[in-house]
Amino acid sequence: MDFTLSPEIESLRLRVRAFVEEHVLPLEADPANFADHENIPEDRLELVRAKAKKAGLWAPQSPKEFGGMGLPIVAWAAIYEEAARSIFGPLAIHCMAPDDGNMNLLAKTGTPAQKEKWLRPIVDGKVRSAFVMTEPAPGSGSDPGMMLTRAEKKGDRYIVRGRKWFITGADGAAHFILIARTSNDARNGLTAFLYHKDQPGWKILRRIPIMGPEEHGGHCELEFDGLEIPAENVLMKEGDGLRVTQIRLGPARLTHCMRWLGFAKRCMEIAQDYVGRREGFGIKLADRESVQIKLGEVAHQIEIGRLLTMHAAWKLDQGERARKEVSMAKVQVADTLHNAADVAIQVNGARGYSKDTILEWVYRYARSARLVDGASEVHKMVLARFMREEGRDFWKWG
Amino acid sequence: MDFTLSPEIESLRLRVRAFVEEHVLPLEADPANFADHENIPEDRLELVRAKAKKAGLWAPQSPKEFGGMGLPIVAWAAIYEEAARSIFGPLAIHCMAPDDGNMNLLAKTGTPAQKEKWLRPIVDGKVRSAFVMTEPAPGSGSDPGMMLTRAEKKGDRYIVRGRKWFITGADGAAHFILIARTSNDARNGLTAFLYHKDQPGWKILRRIPIMGPEEHGGHCELEFDGLEIPAENVLMKEGDGLRVTQIRLGPARLTHCMRWLGFAKRCMEIAQDYVGRREGFGIKLADRESVQIKLGEVAHQIEIGRLLTMHAAWKLDQGERARKEVSMAKVQVADTLHNAADVAIQVNGARGYSKDTILEWVYRYARSARLVDGASEVHKMVLARFMREEGRDFWKWG
Amino acid sequence: MDFTLSPEIESLRLRVRAFVEEHVLPLEADPANFADHENIPEDRLELVRAKAKKAGLWAPQSPKEFGGMGLPIVAWAAIYEEAARSIFGPLAIHCMAPDDGNMNLLAKTGTPAQKEKWLRPIVDGKVRSAFVMTEPAPGSGSDPGMMLTRAEKKGDRYIVRGRKWFITGADGAAHFILIARTSNDARNGLTAFLYHKDQPGWKILRRIPIMGPEEHGGHCELEFDGLEIPAENVLMKEGDGLRVTQIRLGPARLTHCMRWLGFAKRCMEIAQDYVGRREGFGIKLADRESVQIKLGEVAHQIEIGRLLTMHAAWKLDQGERARKEVSMAKVQVADTLHNAADVAIQVNGARGYSKDTILEWVYRYARSARLVDGASEVHKMVLARFMREEGRDFWKWG
Amino acid sequence: MDFTLSPEIESLRLRVRAFVEEHVLPLEADPANFADHENIPEDRLELVRAKAKKAGLWAPQSPKEFGGMGLPIVAWAAIYEEAARSIFGPLAIHCMAPDDGNMNLLAKTGTPAQKEKWLRPIVDGKVRSAFVMTEPAPGSGSDPGMMLTRAEKKGDRYIVRGRKWFITGADGAAHFILIARTSNDARNGLTAFLYHKDQPGWKILRRIPIMGPEEHGGHCELEFDGLEIPAENVLMKEGDGLRVTQIRLGPARLTHCMRWLGFAKRCMEIAQDYVGRREGFGIKLADRESVQIKLGEVAHQIEIGRLLTMHAAWKLDQGERARKEVSMAKVQVADTLHNAADVAIQVNGARGYSKDTILEWVYRYARSARLVDGASEVHKMVLARFMREEGRDFWKWG
Repeated sequence: MDFTLSPEIESLRLRVRAFVEEHVLPLEADPANFADHENIPEDRLELVRAKAKKAGLWAPQSPKEFGGMGLPIVAWAAIYEEAARSIFGPLAIHCMAPDDGNMNLLAKTGTPAQKEKWLRPIVDGKVRSAFVMTEPAPGSGSDPGMMLTRAEKKGDRYIVRGRKWFITGADGAAHFILIARTSNDARNGLTAFLYHKDQPGWKILRRIPIMGPEEHGGHCELEFDGLEIPAENVLMKEGDGLRVTQIRLGPARLTHCMRWLGFAKRCMEIAQDYVGRREGFGIKLADRESVQIKLGEVAHQIEIGRLLTMHAAWKLDQGERARKEVSMAKVQVADTLHNAADVAIQVNGARGYSKDTILEWVYRYARSARLVDGASEVHKMVLARFMREEGRDFWKWG
Repeated sequence: MDFTLSPEIESLRLRVRAFVEEHVLPLEADPANFADHENIPEDRLELVRAKAKKAGLWAPQSPKEFGGMGLPIVAWAAIYEEAARSIFGPLAIHCMAPDDGNMNLLAKTGTPAQKEKWLRPIVDGKVRSAFVMTEPAPGSGSDPGMMLTRAEKKGDRYIVRGRKWFITGADGAAHFILIARTSNDARNGLTAFLYHKDQPGWKILRRIPIMGPEEHGGHCELEFDGLEIPAENVLMKEGDGLRVTQIRLGPARLTHCMRWLGFAKRCMEIAQDYVGRREGFGIKLADRESVQIKLGEVAHQIEIGRLLTMHAAWKLDQGERARKEVSMAKVQVADTLHNAADVAIQVNGARGYSKDTILEWVYRYARSARLVDGASEVHKMVLARFMREEGRDFWKWG
Repeated sequence: MDFTLSPEIESLRLRVRAFVEEHVLPLEADPANFADHENIPEDRLELVRAKAKKAGLWAPQSPKEFGGMGLPIVAWAAIYEEAARSIFGPLAIHCMAPDDGNMNLLAKTGTPAQKEKWLRPIVDGKVRSAFVMTEPAPGSGSDPGMMLTRAEKKGDRYIVRGRKWFITGADGAAHFILIARTSNDARNGLTAFLYHKDQPGWKILRRIPIMGPEEHGGHCELEFDGLEIPAENVLMKEGDGLRVTQIRLGPARLTHCMRWLGFAKRCMEIAQDYVGRREGFGIKLADRESVQIKLGEVAHQIEIGRLLTMHAAWKLDQGERARKEVSMAKVQVADTLHNAADVAIQVNGARGYSKDTILEWVYRYARSARLVDGASEVHKMVLARFMREEGRDFWKWG
Repeated sequence: MDFTLSPEIESLRLRVRAFVEEHVLPLEADPANFADHENIPEDRLELVRAKAKKAGLWAPQSPKEFGGMGLPIVAWAAIYEEAARSIFGPLAIHCMAPDDGNMNLLAKTGTPAQKEKWLRPIVDGKVRSAFVMTEPAPGSGSDPGMMLTRAEKKGDRYIVRGRKWFITGADGAAHFILIARTSNDARNGLTAFLYHKDQPGWKILRRIPIMGPEEHGGHCELEFDGLEIPAENVLMKEGDGLRVTQIRLGPARLTHCMRWLGFAKRCMEIAQDYVGRREGFGIKLADRESVQIKLGEVAHQIEIGRLLTMHAAWKLDQGERARKEVSMAKVQVADTLHNAADVAIQVNGARGYSKDTILEWVYRYARSARLVDGASEVHKMVLARFMREEGRDFWKWG
């Protein structure tokens, strides 16, 4: 049993922390970067990304041979969280969704040729990527078995027709990973494909307006009307689409948690700063029991989230799927992120509701956390099923 | 004991319901009215307001002699809730904050001359109004005792200097009710004034950007640098500022609840419609226990909110201050509004997070409900204090 | 709309309050009555019941012609709650379960002859009664469709065989209302019977030991091995068993709520008394924000429970089934009772966990409240179903 | 980072598990041991303790030289939890409070002579011990600064006068650790003493009746009326009483958590067994979403509790005070224990409320968990204070 980070990882963590403090946090405060309280302009982002690359703090999740830091997942946990002290931090050091999940997926499942062609430019930061899976009703939302988009084989090519939506980052992305139906087989009916934005036969119908802060590339609705994909651009094998999805999902869910924890800690920072100086009815807010209890509860939840996330990261590093551990982290940290923003807003009063702090950005963003990657209820039911099936092994240590 | 509405009020309720269905709901669906998902343009609003006036469904809270419907507060409860089936409904029939609280206040406290001059144009809908009280730190947020804006008497005029913020609707409003300090007396140190936007000596520094939907006139930061107010424009007497505030607050808090209940019911409508047709994993969402429990809980909370609100309304109609009843309604309905939007978003999935429905509008709006008019913790402490002071009378019926 | 009690009911309420104060509360404090912290001995109870009868405060729910007070259900709500200021109060004025539900049922469904024979002695307090329905697994728990106990018709008699459990008050009761299966018809398969304890063919296997305080007659497991019941002792008609159950259930559920509210208020009384005098770390508990918030929350919940209960009572008085209203009251008040006891224990510290107050009695008792008469989840699902089926009528006033 | 137990500890854990399965669980089922649903008779307990001793599974927390297993605290966590699969398990292998906290305290703070005299017989299981600190109002409950019991120095002896209450295990204990006031100094006013039950000058006034299951020795109220304690029986030095208390408290709080987790897991076992076989309305309980969500939530909470507890244990093993980590574990696991029992009762229905399972025992026991060792609110405020004082170090890893 050992709860410490290795000296190497700890040292990287401190370097990321210093980098964020010096180069990223000031970007938030600059109205030119954040006037609309949505996102930093891509050209301005490039400047800080260049610094991060130069500092060797770049793509912690990706293989060294492709330009990343080649770190184990426990190191991601420590680094992502530090990066996410700023809402621009994960973008700055190239550990933001959906690129990071796509890079990890391609590194794990691509052939050498596929990696060279599709992965390297993403790691380099030269192109952005998107993962194209979910569909509007009556297609596949959370149930991939309902997927309607079909890729029909014709000779050595697949012809894709259908509709997708909520495709994060699609607008402006160049490399796409697409899941489509190639047969009606329940387990092997889906296949994963790679395609480039310049190929004909598809288009973006709209950027779907959302409550949450706009991300680069938005959340788009896509139409496929005859996109042709050569067989060499199948990821893994035909029929492996569900497997591809699951390989991507575990770490992708967990890296969300890592970033959310960073945002949640930042909310506490803002809250503490304010309650330490604001008074009312003759008492400083920080000295009120009601305020202390609220902040203490969130601190408690964040620490729990960090233990769960680190545990799941360590388990993934052991080569396990860690479904249970990832589920537990996801449910808990999604709630924690909301609570952190909510409490920070509450103690800040009207100021918390304004755009004078980033709290409202986090609050809107947090609402999606309980939706993406499985609703909390589903994860809880999954836990109950594991407990039922595994019996006393459910509780084994490690 | 009687829980029914009188036939007259019930008939008005049904007329408001029909009006909203026919004339207001379609406005939401028209992109020209709601492209930015913030608010309907004022000129377009005027069209529907003219219809409401013509239909005799106008300003339910205001005296008939000034152009309102002159109804008791229990009738407001029934009517406001129906109006708020649409997010534009309260504006359409002129029962939206802050005008409605200001009209009610002026009707109760103004001299005949003041009413003629300041109230009539607001009831007519010719001008908008604002209530100018809260200040940025280190001034008065929730604690009026910390008010820094001063009105210094000079002959028969008062000279105002100071700063205010989060003044709802200030941008474009013409009639202002201002609370400022006229002495350091703890109970009688504040005074309420009336002023017109065209008077010199004050300005709007900015519309404070907020998370929530933009309202007409925004939430502004104001600076007073020598505004002169003649003594005849004091509302009530010098030193009565706190009393004015309290007279406004009871009904104003409660009309918030009335509208929030309407919005909450609408969220359930949207949720039910969707779960009744969306399927996943071979089962309709509406048939899932997890969905039923969530929706049932919100239905329960809404019904509780309606009882509390109606009880408080009835009590105000009896001429009582009903502080306890209003506090209970406020705390409960603010939470209910959030939960209704939150649950509706959750069962709608990604669609709920988009701007394809009004749910996200309500969700952002709801966040302010737990902040305005006293944080929930404060109201709970107030209840505990009442329970302590009143002994067994705390529980008396009626 | 009117939230006041009529002067007659208010006067009765005050008389019950005075009676409890003078004659019932002292009984709790007498170790001879309450040494085991379970229940008052039956012979000692008789003394106070005689006083109640003499004072004309007896069986508020039962018809005057049979010796009750013949009051509407809104009056029960006011009176039961006052009675339940003491845990012996409902017994003292004869408004305790299961007798009160049985009396109400017999008054509503019995023939004149049946009432004379079976109801009058219960109202008189000469015999106790029990309602025999639930069965151990695999029989009918919450699902009456699974009932295994059968009553087979033989000539003009029914022969009963089967097993029942958790029959409240069975030990020592004389008049039993038994639900048994007379056919396999889904809607009309059950029938209600009356039998007397001295009839052969049945026995009590055991008083089931429970967490909660022992009631007179306990919660028993019964075996029927040939009990013969003549056809004249069928309540309503053969096949009406489910209907009988439902007639009993609405008011019976609600009278639970009425008593629970009285217990919950008492918990607050004990809590307030203690926090008003106990200090720690230099501050009186009553002055701590954390204590005020807890107590304020419970006060809020109790007031909500009272509104819901009174609303449902009024609705039953209008001749409606009020299923929705009773469900809402039941779910809410069951939780409130738990929270009231829980919070009172928490602020009392170790004393609250001891038997030096009645708080632990209420806490144990409260645990059954969320189990009896339908689990909270089920009621919430029922609400969701009503909302779905009734559309906008779900929200009608009255 | 390593979340595994060492092979030695894992092997011990499995041996404890097997021992409990074979020798302890059957004791619960034997009515002779558990007729009153309170505790196993001491003479019967001795039989199983002899077996545990023989198996080398005895006093895991105590030094080998005094007869214990001399294990690090992470090993306690694994072993205690396994032991607590049965409510008699911790007693069986001698890791039950208050003895285990007292043994740990004496091992850490006693002189060699004190250990030989006072510690060895406790580790041997020949005598029981008690820790005598809390006082009834207006004395020291949670605030040791209010302590009224005084030990006045007279020559080389101290004369003790005062009153204590809720002294766990006092009835029948032989070795007592007593905290009393020796001066009015705020930090150094208290002193810890050792005394033997046969010394004159003190007595047990009563075993305080409590809601929870009776423990050996009960929770007693004690009176000191001239007890004389020689100076050699001071633990540490005069004035070190508060320090003694704190040394005891950290591990003692945490061993509570270890046991509570075992009890909570057992509740899930009982719940799962039942829902896997009980049906209603045509569906097995285990297949209901509402049941799965409830059980999944508790499983989640238990796993969180185990991570927090193990983390705190590991931190104590590193020689740190781990106040933050122990607080977090305590708050979380106390709630978890309650929820586990509560949910298990709910899904078991009436059976869960009966004494046919141990669930009601755990439920009553669990109520004390949120009271002892600091109320949850206090721990949350402590966390907020740490977060405020430590700044970003609050979040350091390890």
